[in-house]
Amino acid sequence: MDFPQELSVKEITEIIQGQALGDENAKALGLNELHVVRQGDVTFVDHPKYYNKVLNSSASVVIINKEVPSPEGKTLILHDQPFKAFNMLINKFRAFKSSDKFVSESAKIGKNTVIQPGAFIGNNVTIGDDCIIHANVSVYDNSVIGNNVIIHSGSVVGADAYYFQKKEGRFSKFHSGGRAVINDDVEIGSNCCIDKGVTADTIIGRGTKFDNHCQVGHDTIIGENCLIGAFAAIAGVTKIEDDVIIWARVAINKDIVIGKGAEILATSAVDKSIEGGITYMGSPVMEVKKYWRNMIFMKQLPDLIRSLKKK
Amino acid sequence: MDFPQELSVKEITEIIQGQALGDENAKALGLNELHVVRQGDVTFVDHPKYYNKVLNSSASVVIINKEVPSPEGKTLILHDQPFKAFNMLINKFRAFKSSDKFVSESAKIGKNTVIQPGAFIGNNVTIGDDCIIHANVSVYDNSVIGNNVIIHSGSVVGADAYYFQKKEGRFSKFHSGGRAVINDDVEIGSNCCIDKGVTADTIIGRGTKFDNHCQVGHDTIIGENCLIGAFAAIAGVTKIEDDVIIWARVAINKDIVIGKGAEILATSAVDKSIEGGITYMGSPVMEVKKYWRNMIFMKQLPDLIRSLKKK
Amino acid sequence: MDFPQELSVKEITEIIQGQALGDENAKALGLNELHVVRQGDVTFVDHPKYYNKVLNSSASVVIINKEVPSPEGKTLILHDQPFKAFNMLINKFRAFKSSDKFVSESAKIGKNTVIQPGAFIGNNVTIGDDCIIHANVSVYDNSVIGNNVIIHSGSVVGADAYYFQKKEGRFSKFHSGGRAVINDDVEIGSNCCIDKGVTADTIIGRGTKFDNHCQVGHDTIIGENCLIGAFAAIAGVTKIEDDVIIWARVAINKDIVIGKGAEILATSAVDKSIEGGITYMGSPVMEVKKYWRNMIFMKQLPDLIRSLKKK
Repeated sequence: MDFPQELSVKEITEIIQGQALGDENAKALGLNELHVVRQGDVTFVDHPKYYNKVLNSSASVVIINKEVPSPEGKTLILHDQPFKAFNMLINKFRAFKSSDKFVSESAKIGKNTVIQPGAFIGNNVTIGDDCIIHANVSVYDNSVIGNNVIIHSGSVVGADAYYFQKKEGRFSKFHSGGRAVINDDVEIGSNCCIDKGVTADTIIGRGTKFDNHCQVGHDTIIGENCLIGAFAAIAGVTKIEDDVIIWARVAINKDIVIGKGAEILATSAVDKSIEGGITYMGSPVMEVKKYWRNMIFMKQLPDLIRSLKKK
Repeated sequence: MDFPQELSVKEITEIIQGQALGDENAKALGLNELHVVRQGDVTFVDHPKYYNKVLNSSASVVIINKEVPSPEGKTLILHDQPFKAFNMLINKFRAFKSSDKFVSESAKIGKNTVIQPGAFIGNNVTIGDDCIIHANVSVYDNSVIGNNVIIHSGSVVGADAYYFQKKEGRFSKFHSGGRAVINDDVEIGSNCCIDKGVTADTIIGRGTKFDNHCQVGHDTIIGENCLIGAFAAIAGVTKIEDDVIIWARVAINKDIVIGKGAEILATSAVDKSIEGGITYMGSPVMEVKKYWRNMIFMKQLPDLIRSLKKK
Repeated sequence: MDFPQELSVKEITEIIQGQALGDENAKALGLNELHVVRQGDVTFVDHPKYYNKVLNSSASVVIINKEVPSPEGKTLILHDQPFKAFNMLINKFRAFKSSDKFVSESAKIGKNTVIQPGAFIGNNVTIGDDCIIHANVSVYDNSVIGNNVIIHSGSVVGADAYYFQKKEGRFSKFHSGGRAVINDDVEIGSNCCIDKGVTADTIIGRGTKFDNHCQVGHDTIIGENCLIGAFAAIAGVTKIEDDVIIWARVAINKDIVIGKGAEILATSAVDKSIEGGITYMGSPVMEVKKYWRNMIFMKQLPDLIRSLKKK
């Protein structure tokens, strides 16, 4: 996420009650988690295992829980709870704000777009032209919806990431500051959930079509012209490339890549990244030919065991 | 779907910009896809593979992309994109119309029926007597709901079919002109989705009870007194006969028949039509006895392999 | 459920049109089904198989369809349809009442709690302090929500149990008189369904966090600080102890216990009670080590069969 305007390290240390270890006048433009961090961003690290990775990332400012030498061009901020500090920073600029109206006054709605009764459009939402937002859809703050998009009843766009940190036996919420971005010509079925990104965006590519009851986790990026069948469970931080076809009730793990044009048959579960252009089935998935060959062997198992017992 | 009044072939050719190949004064009463077409209907065909089937169907008017001899009693209309033309015809009479109110003024609501706050009842919907439509239910235009029906919060009745045609790498929507029809004494749990038919009706039989998070695809017909467990994924154009019991998280393929009184145990997937009166389990399903026998063999597999390796 | 005030057996017989077989002045404080019945409660029994169990339960008043000797300290009420009579009693005190407003006037809402547009809060609901109830959430009558609870859009709390009795080929509804109780610091994702108890409560323990599309059946009790992944299908009358972690798309059977700290990996199905402190996978689940070992054997099966055929 971007800050509403440039912030100095000094301003950041005041918000999070931390201690600058370098130039207090250094500037930051936004913040992001490690996997999507950009130059100009604040990020954080709270475990020695990741110190190296974060200190060598593109981040310009790092909130850290140990005094270490600052890498060239980076400013460190010392804080004994970097996760909490990062959360404070998100909340400073993206805290949940209530809305009195079904369509917030700060939402921008395009030409010929229809918002049906009971649809909720949060603060700072942008919706393009020629869309239909059906009854009882909920669009959370800051979501971006393109042109010619249809969202069916009961679907929820931009709700919080499912993202917690365990501390002394209890879970504390990581506040989500990212957005859900739905591009042109997308259709979303009824009762789907597209969560917002944690610090970056969850993105649905142009022309992709969802059936009912689908779930897309935070920070996941789905390409163009995909078909996503009913009850798809797509976890967070995953990338689905263009022209992928997913049949009903498929589960897809987090942090993986589904290659362009892959086809995943119904009730399958994908645990690892898979190549494009191939049809898959099973739980975990394998190429569909192999799956069916295995099924034939499985059918032979009872006779095999019986014949071996006779010997 | 039926047209609001009889149309002549001449009127149809004007709407779709096609060319009549026969009697311009021939009449049509409605339209339907091939699998549910009735005498008096318009239908369409755009692939030589299906020409014969469509030209021998009950349809009275056929939109076709090739000049062929008209069968006795049928009128053909030539159009280079029959799918698009058929869509234009549906849209002419069933285009989405927005509604300003939670309960449309054209909806008919029976005696003693309660509509809770936030429930949306679209244009031309009919609801019978003694129903409870809970908060935040969405009922799309033209749906028909009988007497003594309960629909729990978040459920969506009559949303569009998940039905697209790929053309030059992009998906174009087939506009749904059918309806969702819910008969007497049905109960629908929370957050269910019952899609409308494409040109005919999706029908839920009298006395059938759904748990939460169920999905019923377009044009599917479910019989009387069925129990449908949570997370049922029932695809389109399928027939479930009376007295079927479906436990939780069952997936049912499109275009199949589940026989009367069949029982399908939890987490199963049904890929082909199955006979009634039998209990099934597995993915794909088999008779439950066979399933458990196979499970016993599966358990013996590790020991079998170990003993063979010793030889 | 508790009655609004103490009732005498005489008053109860008048409501249900039954015949007291003992002291008409005996008192009852509430009612419950056998598995949660307390001293002071009315319960019912309609099958000889359960007579002994019910007559030896903690119940103070039993509606029964046969004249049998009253156990010490219990009063029996004779009725030819005990299920129907029990239902009448629930309906007398907990019948569905409609509400004209999104937030019922009888609901109690705590300090700093935000109710977003389109959220429905039913009669006699209690919500604590510092909660966020997002747009288009539905909270049914009598539900209890603690402090610092977040409920995301489209979720439904306290809808009716999925509970029917078959009689002459048709299903009659068992009216639910219990409640859904959500304790402090719980977060519920989008489009979840937490059903109410039938006569007792469905309870979600403090600090437990749900992802989207989860289902919790009637009378189920979930402990503190659990993580419940997307599409969890948790059936009724089950107990999940504290600190349990459930990954995405797990199915959990009714009437079982998941031990403290158990972890259940994605797409698993739990059919029996399982011990705490262990990680499980599979359908049905087994310890994860065993699951992976079995998968290795499965992979060897094709080669095994090929080599045996050569012999």
